[in-house]
Amino acid sequence: MRTQVAIIGAGPAGLLLGQLLHTYGIDNIILEQRSADYVLGRIRAGVLEQVSVDLLRESGVSQRLDAEGLVHEGIELMFSGQRHRLNLAELTGGRKVVVYGQTEVTRDLMQARADAGLTTIYDASNVTLHDFDGTAPRVRWSQNGQQHELACDFIAGCDGFHGVSRASVPASAIQTFEKIYPFGWLGMLADVPPAAHELIYANTERGFVLCSMRSETRSRYYLQVPLSDKVENWSDAAFWDELKRRLGEEVAAQVVTGPSLEKSIAPLRSFVAEPLRFGRLFLAGDAAHIVPPTGAKGLNLAASDVGFLSRALREFYQERSEAGITHYSAQCLRRIWKAERFSWWMTSLLHRFDEADGFNARIQQSELDYVVRSRAGATALAENYVGLPMDF
Amino acid sequence: MRTQVAIIGAGPAGLLLGQLLHTYGIDNIILEQRSADYVLGRIRAGVLEQVSVDLLRESGVSQRLDAEGLVHEGIELMFSGQRHRLNLAELTGGRKVVVYGQTEVTRDLMQARADAGLTTIYDASNVTLHDFDGTAPRVRWSQNGQQHELACDFIAGCDGFHGVSRASVPASAIQTFEKIYPFGWLGMLADVPPAAHELIYANTERGFVLCSMRSETRSRYYLQVPLSDKVENWSDAAFWDELKRRLGEEVAAQVVTGPSLEKSIAPLRSFVAEPLRFGRLFLAGDAAHIVPPTGAKGLNLAASDVGFLSRALREFYQERSEAGITHYSAQCLRRIWKAERFSWWMTSLLHRFDEADGFNARIQQSELDYVVRSRAGATALAENYVGLPMDF
Repeated sequence: MRTQVAIIGAGPAGLLLGQLLHTYGIDNIILEQRSADYVLGRIRAGVLEQVSVDLLRESGVSQRLDAEGLVHEGIELMFSGQRHRLNLAELTGGRKVVVYGQTEVTRDLMQARADAGLTTIYDASNVTLHDFDGTAPRVRWSQNGQQHELACDFIAGCDGFHGVSRASVPASAIQTFEKIYPFGWLGMLADVPPAAHELIYANTERGFVLCSMRSETRSRYYLQVPLSDKVENWSDAAFWDELKRRLGEEVAAQVVTGPSLEKSIAPLRSFVAEPLRFGRLFLAGDAAHIVPPTGAKGLNLAASDVGFLSRALREFYQERSEAGITHYSAQCLRRIWKAERFSWWMTSLLHRFDEADGFNARIQQSELDYVVRSRAGATALAENYVGLPMDF
Repeated sequence: MRTQVAIIGAGPAGLLLGQLLHTYGIDNIILEQRSADYVLGRIRAGVLEQVSVDLLRESGVSQRLDAEGLVHEGIELMFSGQRHRLNLAELTGGRKVVVYGQTEVTRDLMQARADAGLTTIYDASNVTLHDFDGTAPRVRWSQNGQQHELACDFIAGCDGFHGVSRASVPASAIQTFEKIYPFGWLGMLADVPPAAHELIYANTERGFVLCSMRSETRSRYYLQVPLSDKVENWSDAAFWDELKRRLGEEVAAQVVTGPSLEKSIAPLRSFVAEPLRFGRLFLAGDAAHIVPPTGAKGLNLAASDVGFLSRALREFYQERSEAGITHYSAQCLRRIWKAERFSWWMTSLLHRFDEADGFNARIQQSELDYVVRSRAGATALAENYVGLPMDF
């Protein structure tokens, strides 16, 4: 079997890359170790930057996003019991975000891929990557007891933090950077109308809260919890109670409760692997970097990696230029570290840390006050939240 | 002996307060445990915000400042070997800073106080504060073996971090916040023209450098050094060598060397004591808070405390209103914490920390890049550097 680009991983990064390459006339095959249903069952982020929306439009997969996505022109910060709206659009010269679940993005991309008759191989076991330091890389896997091999020009590793792609690179060729936070997010999805029309990021005495949504009838709430906490400790009733306590009377009165569709606890982590290219293997998305979810940057950063990579490959095939390939890693890393910085900063700003460190707690409250009172401070938050331009 | 306001400490905070109160017709006496020459011999900061310049003008002590102070409309940030100018005036709607040494401010205020015939008692030993929880506070001290007592309406503690004022408050009534940084500043003063017309804040591989000045013929340079370093380890030649190595060829070529007038190492510290009022005792300046010098906020923050306090006391005596006194602490603390945040941030941004922490090092470089590339980022730095408005 042969293709131009072998894509490892059928999450949104791999699917979007495949779709963009297809629009450029570049042949590609996706290998995924899980089933399509498993991939669709993962509940993830839900805020798309303009850059991500543009890439989905360019790939021709935005009909449902354009019809159903909720355009948000602002967010709310809440601290010391007060709500402060940041008008993202006004602060950034009209830029906005679109609330549309990652699961829906994945579903739309899968459908488009099926409609275009492109090959995705699910349930591929024991995937291994070979010879990406030369000009004829190969990917091998097994399925139903059979061995398979795919010859290709390039391999795109879009297979997430635990995937085989990054693990295939010699440890000596890769440098990693990591920060672990001393808390996690307990998330709950429920088919109830959201408490507010816009997202509320709340720094409360009992810990961080995010009031988010997937649609006008589906809410997504998060609570900061200790790393030692277990989802089994949280009945739906306990979740709603704690949410309302943290939010205070005014917002709590707007919370509509209902049975959970999903509850889970995710740790918060910052992680970057450098570089993102090893010969003819490229890493993109979570395979190369993780951000804590506070800035809503995970999916968006995967999309911009894929944007850079699809352009680089188009240059290679259409213009016989290796410039894009050569610069791919540095170009991505500049943007990645900006998003890592912003995500770290939003996390630091909004969560409750060890109360014994009074100095940092005061600095945090002062910074929140500064951000909402200073136009420059608010703009710095807003322009990062809606997403810096690709060429920033 | 009796006065309306007993001021403890004849540094710039105490002297400026005395002068402002004098212009409002409020009687005051300053007590200082050191000699006038000792006070004048201390080399300190040299960048005045607009708020500080305005207060010096209001107190009638700005003739020499207006004639000799160097108005600066920009600063330079240097990192990764590149210089980036921030146009402070353009970013902040015309606000600027004035380079004029703290020693000169002190000298001008001393002269004005002498000209006005106001009392300053130098070499006052064993100063003790009494009964400030009532309406008739007293201050006692000894001089030349004699005991003295001053009755007053209020006591202003302007006697610095190690002074008696904060120490006179019961520990249970005060809450302190502190951060110690793992390095110090080695400063050198020399009568040589500065390397550049504006200040250069440099984050270099060998550590932080500040190229500063007191006038067009007097330079002030600082090097980040380990806390364990000793000033005896640094000959003038060694200082100039290290300075040039850190700055790189282009800037080093502009450095004019010469014999040092002074060299010293100062640790970097953040410190805040809350509240700033205890009955009829007020703390102001370093008695209540310390900032690392990176943001040039120490003297300026003392000046704004004194600005709030002088207005509060004027309200009390002229309008029989206690509102200013009641709000003094909260009003100051809001501004203090903004300056503490900015000073901590500038310090974090510009110094080299433990290189083992690669994540934070990358975040720092990314933030520097963001600040110089984003107008909002640059404006946030600039508006804090020139000083937030008093009522921010």
